[in-house]
Amino acid sequence: MLEKYLYTRNLTLSIVEPLQIEDFGVQAMVDVSPPKWHLAHTTWFFEEFILLNNKPEYSPYFPYTRELFNSYYETLSKPFSRSKRGLISRPTVSEVLDYRQAVDEEVTNLLNNNDEVDEKVYSFIQLGIQHEQQHQELLMTDLKYNFSINPLKPIYKEMSGHSSLPRLKWYDFEGGMTTIGTNKKEFSFDNEQPEHQCFLYPYSIANRPVTNGEYLEFIEDKGYETPTLWLSDGWQTVTEQKWNAPLYWEYVDGNWHHFTLSGMKSIEKDQPVTHISFYEADAYARWAGARLPTEQEWENAFKNEAIEGTFLENMLFNEEDRSEKNVFGTVWEWTSSPYTRYPQSARPEGALGEYNQKFMSNQMVLRGGSCASPRNHIRLTYRNFFHPDKRWQFSGIRLAKEESAL
Amino acid sequence: MLEKYLYTRNLTLSIVEPLQIEDFGVQAMVDVSPPKWHLAHTTWFFEEFILLNNKPEYSPYFPYTRELFNSYYETLSKPFSRSKRGLISRPTVSEVLDYRQAVDEEVTNLLNNNDEVDEKVYSFIQLGIQHEQQHQELLMTDLKYNFSINPLKPIYKEMSGHSSLPRLKWYDFEGGMTTIGTNKKEFSFDNEQPEHQCFLYPYSIANRPVTNGEYLEFIEDKGYETPTLWLSDGWQTVTEQKWNAPLYWEYVDGNWHHFTLSGMKSIEKDQPVTHISFYEADAYARWAGARLPTEQEWENAFKNEAIEGTFLENMLFNEEDRSEKNVFGTVWEWTSSPYTRYPQSARPEGALGEYNQKFMSNQMVLRGGSCASPRNHIRLTYRNFFHPDKRWQFSGIRLAKEESAL
Amino acid sequence: MLEKYLYTRNLTLSIVEPLQIEDFGVQAMVDVSPPKWHLAHTTWFFEEFILLNNKPEYSPYFPYTRELFNSYYETLSKPFSRSKRGLISRPTVSEVLDYRQAVDEEVTNLLNNNDEVDEKVYSFIQLGIQHEQQHQELLMTDLKYNFSINPLKPIYKEMSGHSSLPRLKWYDFEGGMTTIGTNKKEFSFDNEQPEHQCFLYPYSIANRPVTNGEYLEFIEDKGYETPTLWLSDGWQTVTEQKWNAPLYWEYVDGNWHHFTLSGMKSIEKDQPVTHISFYEADAYARWAGARLPTEQEWENAFKNEAIEGTFLENMLFNEEDRSEKNVFGTVWEWTSSPYTRYPQSARPEGALGEYNQKFMSNQMVLRGGSCASPRNHIRLTYRNFFHPDKRWQFSGIRLAKEESAL
Amino acid sequence: MLEKYLYTRNLTLSIVEPLQIEDFGVQAMVDVSPPKWHLAHTTWFFEEFILLNNKPEYSPYFPYTRELFNSYYETLSKPFSRSKRGLISRPTVSEVLDYRQAVDEEVTNLLNNNDEVDEKVYSFIQLGIQHEQQHQELLMTDLKYNFSINPLKPIYKEMSGHSSLPRLKWYDFEGGMTTIGTNKKEFSFDNEQPEHQCFLYPYSIANRPVTNGEYLEFIEDKGYETPTLWLSDGWQTVTEQKWNAPLYWEYVDGNWHHFTLSGMKSIEKDQPVTHISFYEADAYARWAGARLPTEQEWENAFKNEAIEGTFLENMLFNEEDRSEKNVFGTVWEWTSSPYTRYPQSARPEGALGEYNQKFMSNQMVLRGGSCASPRNHIRLTYRNFFHPDKRWQFSGIRLAKEESAL
Repeated sequence: MLEKYLYTRNLTLSIVEPLQIEDFGVQAMVDVSPPKWHLAHTTWFFEEFILLNNKPEYSPYFPYTRELFNSYYETLSKPFSRSKRGLISRPTVSEVLDYRQAVDEEVTNLLNNNDEVDEKVYSFIQLGIQHEQQHQELLMTDLKYNFSINPLKPIYKEMSGHSSLPRLKWYDFEGGMTTIGTNKKEFSFDNEQPEHQCFLYPYSIANRPVTNGEYLEFIEDKGYETPTLWLSDGWQTVTEQKWNAPLYWEYVDGNWHHFTLSGMKSIEKDQPVTHISFYEADAYARWAGARLPTEQEWENAFKNEAIEGTFLENMLFNEEDRSEKNVFGTVWEWTSSPYTRYPQSARPEGALGEYNQKFMSNQMVLRGGSCASPRNHIRLTYRNFFHPDKRWQFSGIRLAKEESAL
Repeated sequence: MLEKYLYTRNLTLSIVEPLQIEDFGVQAMVDVSPPKWHLAHTTWFFEEFILLNNKPEYSPYFPYTRELFNSYYETLSKPFSRSKRGLISRPTVSEVLDYRQAVDEEVTNLLNNNDEVDEKVYSFIQLGIQHEQQHQELLMTDLKYNFSINPLKPIYKEMSGHSSLPRLKWYDFEGGMTTIGTNKKEFSFDNEQPEHQCFLYPYSIANRPVTNGEYLEFIEDKGYETPTLWLSDGWQTVTEQKWNAPLYWEYVDGNWHHFTLSGMKSIEKDQPVTHISFYEADAYARWAGARLPTEQEWENAFKNEAIEGTFLENMLFNEEDRSEKNVFGTVWEWTSSPYTRYPQSARPEGALGEYNQKFMSNQMVLRGGSCASPRNHIRLTYRNFFHPDKRWQFSGIRLAKEESAL
Repeated sequence: MLEKYLYTRNLTLSIVEPLQIEDFGVQAMVDVSPPKWHLAHTTWFFEEFILLNNKPEYSPYFPYTRELFNSYYETLSKPFSRSKRGLISRPTVSEVLDYRQAVDEEVTNLLNNNDEVDEKVYSFIQLGIQHEQQHQELLMTDLKYNFSINPLKPIYKEMSGHSSLPRLKWYDFEGGMTTIGTNKKEFSFDNEQPEHQCFLYPYSIANRPVTNGEYLEFIEDKGYETPTLWLSDGWQTVTEQKWNAPLYWEYVDGNWHHFTLSGMKSIEKDQPVTHISFYEADAYARWAGARLPTEQEWENAFKNEAIEGTFLENMLFNEEDRSEKNVFGTVWEWTSSPYTRYPQSARPEGALGEYNQKFMSNQMVLRGGSCASPRNHIRLTYRNFFHPDKRWQFSGIRLAKEESAL
Repeated sequence: MLEKYLYTRNLTLSIVEPLQIEDFGVQAMVDVSPPKWHLAHTTWFFEEFILLNNKPEYSPYFPYTRELFNSYYETLSKPFSRSKRGLISRPTVSEVLDYRQAVDEEVTNLLNNNDEVDEKVYSFIQLGIQHEQQHQELLMTDLKYNFSINPLKPIYKEMSGHSSLPRLKWYDFEGGMTTIGTNKKEFSFDNEQPEHQCFLYPYSIANRPVTNGEYLEFIEDKGYETPTLWLSDGWQTVTEQKWNAPLYWEYVDGNWHHFTLSGMKSIEKDQPVTHISFYEADAYARWAGARLPTEQEWENAFKNEAIEGTFLENMLFNEEDRSEKNVFGTVWEWTSSPYTRYPQSARPEGALGEYNQKFMSNQMVLRGGSCASPRNHIRLTYRNFFHPDKRWQFSGIRLAKEESAL
């Protein structure tokens, strides 16, 4: 457990290694947080749930931490205003790194001293690791957004590597009763529990995500100008935000380019389209004569797939290496399922009840992980969720159909 | 059919009978429409879908009607800005009533001339009737909102009548496979179709809606000040809107009152709480140690109930007459189900594809009809839907539980 | 005095004579008020300042009047929210007309009963008449705005008549000490008082306002796209509001038209440009190599001109009849003077202190009256004032220069 | 000239010396700019107006500089969005310091090489120095605002020193013709020119600014809750912004404190009140039975005063050392004069025409300099200007009266 803890904590540091101090404070829109805040908040999580609960003599490293680095746990304290996270120059980056180190030492001592460690501590450490993994993904996506609005178009890291998506095929499923969710001993979030039964009608699902080339056809067919392809709230968003392409795309000198963590690049037609909102995914599917899968259809379809693909550790944020069978990684896949409670599920007590369940309105489920997800963070039953207009995650489209395409 | 048509058209006129001309133009918030607009829009629906499609010689009564009184059918024309419906003094009320009469005459002629009427015309008349019934309900709820912001607190109609809700009990259901939705020959909306199978876990559901008295306990227990009771988006709404009670409630001289269509009245503790958002319904249920039912649980529970209760025709908007078995009417009941597509359902072609399906995001399903719903508009399978923060409908709460309360 | 009172009260009624009841309630933007509100507010003014102060037995006609029809006199009561004046359907138009009549009868009785009338009452009646004249102008300009947003483009009144503006000439003035403002026995507002000395440098002023034709040259020379012509706040307004022509102008089928109280009309090149903001007037003057006059320069230049021209009573809102010497009427003329206090001026006590002086920030002075000003309301020393971005008044441009154009 | 240039450039660096790198990027509201931006923008000014115009071989140090560090000169390029200055992490602080040094070397070479330097170059260097001095003041005030929103309340520098304001007295002036503005050979901005004649009525002016103690009486007398004391736009601001004290004041444990560049401090009653908007200054003056002076009255009153007092170089941002005669420094003094053009003044050509004159609407003149103004930047005729709701400058109140208080 200690090894896993330290591995995760160090992976976070390696993510921010290419940054300048100035990069740590930026919050370019309210949805993202500054890198420094991510570093501090993930540390606060261990301090709050492990150290303060288990070390009677421990007092917070920074006196103001409990407000400043609390994200949204109203049970614990009044969180500092989310929209102002980018305005807080102190504590400095160096002070936050010291904070990380001090908490790491305390946690290490705790874990090395077996007397103090009970099952509950282990389970919170486990949760804290999973929590930090989620923030590793957000660090990457937030950083990308922050860099994108700078006219210098800073480069996080030069990356190379390339492989093409296979030809589109459809996998058919008969439906009937199936098992969704998990009761396994291995870690899972409360929103994936419990394992439960669900009835499905026959359906087909695509063997791979939609490509940039396919999405370009939608754009060129005036997809963004055709209101009948869109959900009503989606069309309002398209109109207000003046969307005409995925986030980060720019039409320059007669060609589509997009901002990547390696700078501005040409669009590669055989790679998966990403930085797509649910509204765009839904409109594209309608245009393509298909639909998005429900999360149950998705989970049922890929029950036996290995968790293989392009993940955070590959540091390939714009490319991919995927055989036909790689259904995990590269891009999150929007489902048609609103994020709601599973039948029979229980709500954890205290602050942890706020972790997942209070977001169960107005958000849509995404499945499968992305190129920014840590590899061992992703599971078949993992449910990611975002509001339907959000585009700054590595989010893409997998098509489904009611009946076999054959 | 003609009889039903004329009955519906006249019922609409009887609703606006107590109004002054000045009342017809008001739009007190963007969600509501002025009564005059409702009168014109429901007429436009028949003109657009029946007369223009079936009478080659027919030209629109007002040349500008197709934009001005189109609500949201982008397929047909560019609808006039929704937020400005209250700023349009011309055509006058009297001109709009003439418009109604002219269209009614044309439709009557059409229906009396059997040669011209095929099945498709009948189905559009049917749809137009259902559509007008929906606007009858909106006329009542919009009117109530418009009046409520006037410091004179105008009275629509004096009403009386009173009866108490029964004691709270729980009905238990075993779950298993059940049939949801409808394929019946009788009219239903596309969003209720098709009949399909669904698997339910055991659950219990309350015999009646939550009362004002019960909801007051939630208020007095600081329900509106306790963030952990709320969904995250709901808590943000409570904070921004400074909600501390249902819409229309005012605390005056030490007692709660509410604005009704009969003016300001004291809160009656044994009547159902209404003008509640989904967020409030969800928070109340959590506080009460229960939850909201899914729409499938609701439909399964009340399969055999008669469609009896207090409806529009009763003109009792603040009271009710309900035996323990009256599950329909009085207040719509929020379910925990986001409004989504039923499996295997098809999307109607053309403008009708916009009628229901483009709203399938960010909205929640309500069931059972209200005191403002026309009686023969309501069905077991009927799905109403609103965004989770909306409160100006007659919307209330029915509780459910995972397991038997016994 | 009674005769003047009744004349003014009746003139107001004659203005609204062409309206439908539906027109009386509309407030198409926050700056305008519904006609019904103007009718009630001007009546409230007499009730509040004359009847309630001088008739001990008098109680308000409507109990809620003091809030609902108070505009901005915080000294008296909490005014009803300005932005919601268009949402108040009750009292009805007919009830407001009854209110007018009842107050008129009371005032008539008062004035006929000499015992009750002292100097102070006369001075308030005088003020109330001037106040109602101001609202007569607003009635016209607000009505025009309300009609303009209706796609039916309603016609208030067909008008005809036409005459051209003379050729541009410059009048030169030597400057030196001059007398500004007034101490005269005849009525004037506190903001025109007292008569005081002021030192002017030599200047020239145009013999007539800028024409539509001249303004078109500014548009065609990309005046609206050239930031260096504009004040900084003005350029921000142009950009945000997407201004590219005066208010009410529309480019249709290759020609500029504008909405008038007689409907949509072609632009007449030899008539004065109007519905211009201060920002546009200032930018036009800079483009033309001139500047706007100060209010002192304006007043000094036209000291000996007769108060002749096109006024409200002419009912010619789009045309004019002006010889070279008509400097009054037709369009208000923006000056370069911010609206501030005259030296040595006193602030009236009580609510009247709020009448003019609390608006002395962020507004610019206009001079000369317009086609919507009652003829005997306008004086040489009259100071009108609006925020620099406002365009719904009949406001135009008169140029000035530092030195003689000769 | 070179000496003065280098002195000014170094003074800027000494201001930011106590900062951490993280502090350089913060923009806590749209009115302020990040310290890094000030460092770069002042350098860009010399690069743009001196180097690019006079060194044919010179190309910009950063290719993107002309947009990124242009403030508002539309003549030159499209300035980068003002509200996003705090989101630009690159170039880094160190790169910006290198940029400063490179430009300083080029300017030094230019000035040392007499052949290249004509009168115009000297005048632009002179202007660039004055420009940088203005940004030195903004650096201090922006920094203070940035720190103030951080719950850690960072300390810029510990400061001490204290002295009391003298007893309030009135200086009387007879008025008559006076000379305002300047034609002097020494540097002045175009908005101070030309020297011109002006007629004044008799007035009195206070010997010192209003103190915290006096302002507290206004607060305690419900000044912030009394609408009749306020200008209309001011009252709207008070209501919307929920103002109840000057900016930075907090009521803690029964006493008023304020945030200073030395952290949170108790209010000292005998020091001048500061961080006051024009609206507050105007309301206070009305409450005190006085008024604000016009800028002409102010300038006429202090024609013979030495430019002595507390300035930037004193590094005493919360205290002061002022004899009765010190009218300059410590706090800017709001006048009742809107910022407008002086008679006979000319507009500089090209980009410099944008320097001052495009701000001549909606702003009020302040006089006298503050504790954050460089000492040799301030003149008798110096006109500072801000919108009337701005409070983050060191702005205070000096009272005037129409007539002698004797």
